[in-house]
Amino acid sequence: MKNFITTDDWTRSDLQEILDYAKYLKKERFQDTLKNKSVALLFFNPSMRTRTSFEIGVQELGGYAVVLHPGKDAWPIEFKKNALMDQDSEEHIIEVAKVLSEYCDLIAVRSFPKFQDINEDISDNVIKSFEKFSTVPVVNMETITHPCQELAHILSLQEEIGDLDGKNYLITWTYHPKPLNTAVANSSLLIASKFGMNVKLLCPTEDYILHESFISKAQENCSKNNASFEITHNIEDGYSDADIVYAKSWGAINYFNDANNEKILRDKFKNFIVDEKKMALTNNAKFSHCIPLRRNIKATDAVMDSDYCIAVQEAANRLHVQKSLLTTLLKGK
Amino acid sequence: MKNFITTDDWTRSDLQEILDYAKYLKKERFQDTLKNKSVALLFFNPSMRTRTSFEIGVQELGGYAVVLHPGKDAWPIEFKKNALMDQDSEEHIIEVAKVLSEYCDLIAVRSFPKFQDINEDISDNVIKSFEKFSTVPVVNMETITHPCQELAHILSLQEEIGDLDGKNYLITWTYHPKPLNTAVANSSLLIASKFGMNVKLLCPTEDYILHESFISKAQENCSKNNASFEITHNIEDGYSDADIVYAKSWGAINYFNDANNEKILRDKFKNFIVDEKKMALTNNAKFSHCIPLRRNIKATDAVMDSDYCIAVQEAANRLHVQKSLLTTLLKGK
Amino acid sequence: MKNFITTDDWTRSDLQEILDYAKYLKKERFQDTLKNKSVALLFFNPSMRTRTSFEIGVQELGGYAVVLHPGKDAWPIEFKKNALMDQDSEEHIIEVAKVLSEYCDLIAVRSFPKFQDINEDISDNVIKSFEKFSTVPVVNMETITHPCQELAHILSLQEEIGDLDGKNYLITWTYHPKPLNTAVANSSLLIASKFGMNVKLLCPTEDYILHESFISKAQENCSKNNASFEITHNIEDGYSDADIVYAKSWGAINYFNDANNEKILRDKFKNFIVDEKKMALTNNAKFSHCIPLRRNIKATDAVMDSDYCIAVQEAANRLHVQKSLLTTLLKGK
Repeated sequence: MKNFITTDDWTRSDLQEILDYAKYLKKERFQDTLKNKSVALLFFNPSMRTRTSFEIGVQELGGYAVVLHPGKDAWPIEFKKNALMDQDSEEHIIEVAKVLSEYCDLIAVRSFPKFQDINEDISDNVIKSFEKFSTVPVVNMETITHPCQELAHILSLQEEIGDLDGKNYLITWTYHPKPLNTAVANSSLLIASKFGMNVKLLCPTEDYILHESFISKAQENCSKNNASFEITHNIEDGYSDADIVYAKSWGAINYFNDANNEKILRDKFKNFIVDEKKMALTNNAKFSHCIPLRRNIKATDAVMDSDYCIAVQEAANRLHVQKSLLTTLLKGK
Repeated sequence: MKNFITTDDWTRSDLQEILDYAKYLKKERFQDTLKNKSVALLFFNPSMRTRTSFEIGVQELGGYAVVLHPGKDAWPIEFKKNALMDQDSEEHIIEVAKVLSEYCDLIAVRSFPKFQDINEDISDNVIKSFEKFSTVPVVNMETITHPCQELAHILSLQEEIGDLDGKNYLITWTYHPKPLNTAVANSSLLIASKFGMNVKLLCPTEDYILHESFISKAQENCSKNNASFEITHNIEDGYSDADIVYAKSWGAINYFNDANNEKILRDKFKNFIVDEKKMALTNNAKFSHCIPLRRNIKATDAVMDSDYCIAVQEAANRLHVQKSLLTTLLKGK
Repeated sequence: MKNFITTDDWTRSDLQEILDYAKYLKKERFQDTLKNKSVALLFFNPSMRTRTSFEIGVQELGGYAVVLHPGKDAWPIEFKKNALMDQDSEEHIIEVAKVLSEYCDLIAVRSFPKFQDINEDISDNVIKSFEKFSTVPVVNMETITHPCQELAHILSLQEEIGDLDGKNYLITWTYHPKPLNTAVANSSLLIASKFGMNVKLLCPTEDYILHESFISKAQENCSKNNASFEITHNIEDGYSDADIVYAKSWGAINYFNDANNEKILRDKFKNFIVDEKKMALTNNAKFSHCIPLRRNIKATDAVMDSDYCIAVQEAANRLHVQKSLLTTLLKGK
């Protein structure tokens, strides 16, 4: 049985197969590949596009989706092994996963990192627990990475640019009033390096460098593909010659539990906003960002409304890549 | 492309076509007119009948519905043009509308007036923004008017009374412990005047007269139809000779931002409750009210449980008129 | 028309028919028995398995489900007859039930006892009001009893043990940090006694004896079936010779409105946790518990992970018994 927890578990060619079938589904939208299949969508955090695209996608393939919000309309869940459950949690992941596996053919989970303990966030315990105790495939709808977004991102780039090998890819930090999680940024490193691009990470200071596990994986992928990997804190260096600019904001991971100082630090870097002047430094780059996006904070209206902005296209592609993914995971079951 | 934002954008004969097909659907409930179509239902406010009737209606026509609550299970949305998005909103209507348009074939929106600034409420900015940026039809599930309720209201009156031209129609203010929005009352003026009735607005004082834009539209419609339009603050005047009594409570629109004084004023008029004594003044009128309704506050148990009360019938007709409307809007797409 | 409010309204043979068809549906999962039928699921309290199993079950039979949370995404409801509705409730059960009956073919309701007034809880007013005013069948998704869980419980026991007549059945109180409602425990008494078992109720003190209406019903059933009924406060007495151990925690019903003293009392009995030592006293009993369950509080990890624990199987059977029940209630409509 295959799960879809991180693209790091999948080969580039297997991912390309998912992307190719997504391109087909984009033209031939209605299929029967999920006939009599049901999918549980568990949201520990809010969602707009993820929920909509999964719910509609499942139905367009002839299946059924059920949406649950544990801790709100469902019971809070315990994830610790051998826990003495005398706190808030009313049930254990063992029972949740086993019972849902009896009702459904696939379980998809959104559970954001809590930004309190980097090691706990990196361990990705919530979805790993579902993986451990479920007897049906488990799909990541965003935890410490966001692999469905990765697929939509690459599909959009392939649609716009074609072959990605050797292209110059910039993932740039951008400002946001709150310390966001690193999921999409981590994902950006994983997938851009996997698909053969020269990857540059631009962030304000060393404090904003992403976790070493993702940095080293990106370095390893780039090295295998004879591509370069670079970290820079200089905006001009970052943007020059880029074919693709992907932006995301995140909190400084060494400032866990030090929110006040992280804010003081972060507020110095509002100038990292993606604007036309920076984009002019690139090699006529395409720009994208995972939506939701705060306009005129993360990117200017001019950038968002430009021809080279493919953020809406990327969001729209979520539907198609996810339908392809679900079909792949449930094939022959 | 047609949207359904206000019945004022539609001709009486086009609305009658929707009503006629609704009568057909009431007998032949299951059709394929929404096969492979999906509808997004966005609720910025609570709902019971609207959500249920839309969700079931879409499915009875072979389509799929997805329900979203922005700000609760989805992200809060910014509606201001060129906003510097450093407050609560995480995404802009431009992206929301464009991406949903890629996933869905129709977007329906409930967004109540905020009762803080009458001009903002009248501008109906939320649904107008969806209309502006969506590339699929947009349907009003209650904003500053409630056009789906209008359709159900007229269908019920036609079922009970037949031809409505020249009938005497009373829309009466009634008490409620909170200052409710004016949507259903505004809608009552628009639709009763459009369908050729003599319209009387009964409210306690000048402070409760509805916004001039709806008053003047009702006057204009009545004048075109050679029907009368009248405003009265005298209960006996209001009820006498009425063929139809429609009740609704709303806050005094000049008391925006002056909730305390509005309450003092409103609390003087508990006597506007619809009761048997008042109904006895009418021409054996039918009574209705958009549900939810507080019994023994807005109308007495005796009125609600009477043979002439058609409030439940009107609520039930929501299902049929909305199915007809959706079919009309998505025909041939 | 038949409702499913309590199994006490149904004969053992009618219930057995539902169980037998559930066994069939477990093998032949996809049927058309709810084609063009819609079901409203009303949750006044959180739910995981109930909602998932109902939503998926309805769809596996070709129908549609709509989920409502009155007071959250829908309006708060008044249940008192002739109420002057000047408090929180925006609409009355009369209108809610009548309108939903027009939209849907069946209404299912979850409404937990409030643990403030035992007589109000026992009166089961919320679901009884739906029963009174609805014109479609009403199903109990847990109120003062939990009859769908009863069906799943008995199905699992029949699968594991076969004929249940004359088996020794223990329902044991177990600890929980909060005073839970008595629904599943009441249900346990009703259904074990109905299916011919010798029933023993084990609880810490007289304060934890369940409400007399359920005790007397269990005594009456046992007597009819020539089976024994016994109450004990001695753990060894309770477990010895049991063929089945069913556990549940509940608050002492005489301590309504005296939460502090109830807690002091309850905290003395943490030793009622189901563990291997206690299970060793039984006649190789099967163990079960309605999920959610707090591990190492209500039962130990060793018991939950044992071969004789059938709690997950019971939860899984919810899907099948409910599909069978809905088919039975909607047959020929």
